[in-house]
Amino acid sequence: MDLHFKQVTIVGVGLIGGSLGMILKQQELADRVVGVGRSLENLELAVKLEAIDEFYQDPKSAMKDADLVILATPVESYALHLQEWGHLLEPGTIVSDVGSVKGKLVAEVEGILPEQVRFVGAHPIAGKEQSGVGASCPDLFKGAVCIVTPTSQTDEDALSSIEGLWKAAGSVMVSLDPFLHDRILGAVSHLPHVVAFALMNTLLELQEDAGGSQNWFAYSGGGLRDTTRIAASSPEMWRDIFLWNRENLLRMIEALGGQLNRFQKLLEDQDGPGLEHAIAQARDARRQLP
Amino acid sequence: MDLHFKQVTIVGVGLIGGSLGMILKQQELADRVVGVGRSLENLELAVKLEAIDEFYQDPKSAMKDADLVILATPVESYALHLQEWGHLLEPGTIVSDVGSVKGKLVAEVEGILPEQVRFVGAHPIAGKEQSGVGASCPDLFKGAVCIVTPTSQTDEDALSSIEGLWKAAGSVMVSLDPFLHDRILGAVSHLPHVVAFALMNTLLELQEDAGGSQNWFAYSGGGLRDTTRIAASSPEMWRDIFLWNRENLLRMIEALGGQLNRFQKLLEDQDGPGLEHAIAQARDARRQLP
Repeated sequence: MDLHFKQVTIVGVGLIGGSLGMILKQQELADRVVGVGRSLENLELAVKLEAIDEFYQDPKSAMKDADLVILATPVESYALHLQEWGHLLEPGTIVSDVGSVKGKLVAEVEGILPEQVRFVGAHPIAGKEQSGVGASCPDLFKGAVCIVTPTSQTDEDALSSIEGLWKAAGSVMVSLDPFLHDRILGAVSHLPHVVAFALMNTLLELQEDAGGSQNWFAYSGGGLRDTTRIAASSPEMWRDIFLWNRENLLRMIEALGGQLNRFQKLLEDQDGPGLEHAIAQARDARRQLP
Repeated sequence: MDLHFKQVTIVGVGLIGGSLGMILKQQELADRVVGVGRSLENLELAVKLEAIDEFYQDPKSAMKDADLVILATPVESYALHLQEWGHLLEPGTIVSDVGSVKGKLVAEVEGILPEQVRFVGAHPIAGKEQSGVGASCPDLFKGAVCIVTPTSQTDEDALSSIEGLWKAAGSVMVSLDPFLHDRILGAVSHLPHVVAFALMNTLLELQEDAGGSQNWFAYSGGGLRDTTRIAASSPEMWRDIFLWNRENLLRMIEALGGQLNRFQKLLEDQDGPGLEHAIAQARDARRQLP
């Protein structure tokens, strides 16, 4: 299959959009990479970093000649975007995304786009706690899993193109139902973010309760730093992911509460063997991580 | 001050004890470094790695000529150890430790040791998820905080010697009351471990609830890996730390539960601005970490 696009329009030239643009340009997978964004400064930086060839602040101008459009904005903005310029796309144009939620969002996107526009949901599992095009790099997706989430409506050729694009980026491809995606990612990604945010806020609270005169963080080591690394992520982005995956997350936070209660009970009972068992179970599970 | 010991006896030649032994030997801070442990294989490896000069499996034989004894075993074993050989120590001998809890433990140790033996509580905040002398290295404590926890009973000269030893290891010294130590470390270290263990166990539970046929961890990225790195720690060691700091931990798990409830409430109310605020608060706190 010849993977080549005339014009790829990337809506949202941040860490992910910018890194994908670099890959498209370096591997000459597109004649032209066009960026769309609000911040002129960011777009000019994206051109300088060779993530895009040119840009528009008005997305409508960037759609005319696109045969591939990548949504790389916060997921909450998808509907507004597609309502603004979806009808301007040529029949056959592929629209894809990089969003961390799928499920209902994919259904909504398929409902908004004109019938002859071909949507493929995608989620590259890569990222850093830094954001913005300045943190972009063409190696970002190397060796990382990328999930595509086809539905009964998904065009097979468009799916192959998107899979080919992410393979070119170095990703390991897997395919999941959009709703199963949200359940699994809710567990292995969204819940850990809730945990990291809640833990940081707990430490703030405990420190304030103690009078707040001493900086407790000065006594922390690599453990806390690692455990809360993802708490440095973008509030806007995670607000949206949490809201779009709220039913799964609510159930999962409940389950986590149960596991915390288990530790409380073991501590109250001073149950040494029980504690050791619960910790060993966690350690064994941790060793299964890729 | 001339920092030099005739014989340093390290009880428990694991990651921390072994690394300290390497430092003592490399910097020639002791004429002789003697290891005590149960596993012959581990002790022989420690000699081979130049962490100790010689060893005994019976601790009593290792105490006769010691002018410094370092307890580097799980904290639960301190009392048994001191009862076994504390009375064999020469007057003036310094006993110190590397345990992650202090408070009640320091009081207990001071109660067991003969009056002329000088105890100094110490806690180097360093470690890795690997354990055992095989993971030891003389750089382990470089740039890391080491907390000493003197009490009204602590001998000033002994305290200076222990501070000198850890400074030689490259540590940044701070001094805390033993009970305040447990409160602060409960927050910035022990609670994050509870969280990492409970999160791993929650993921196991969620995956089992879903039928367990699919390996959800295959879809995880660097976020989960970092967040749960410390869940790979030793069950025996953390069982003991949790039990010794249970009052603080119970209160802190309760506070964490409150912060998780806050996220649940915000999700139930679909409160976007509230979520963004709670996340931004966590992110700002995360940025304060050293």
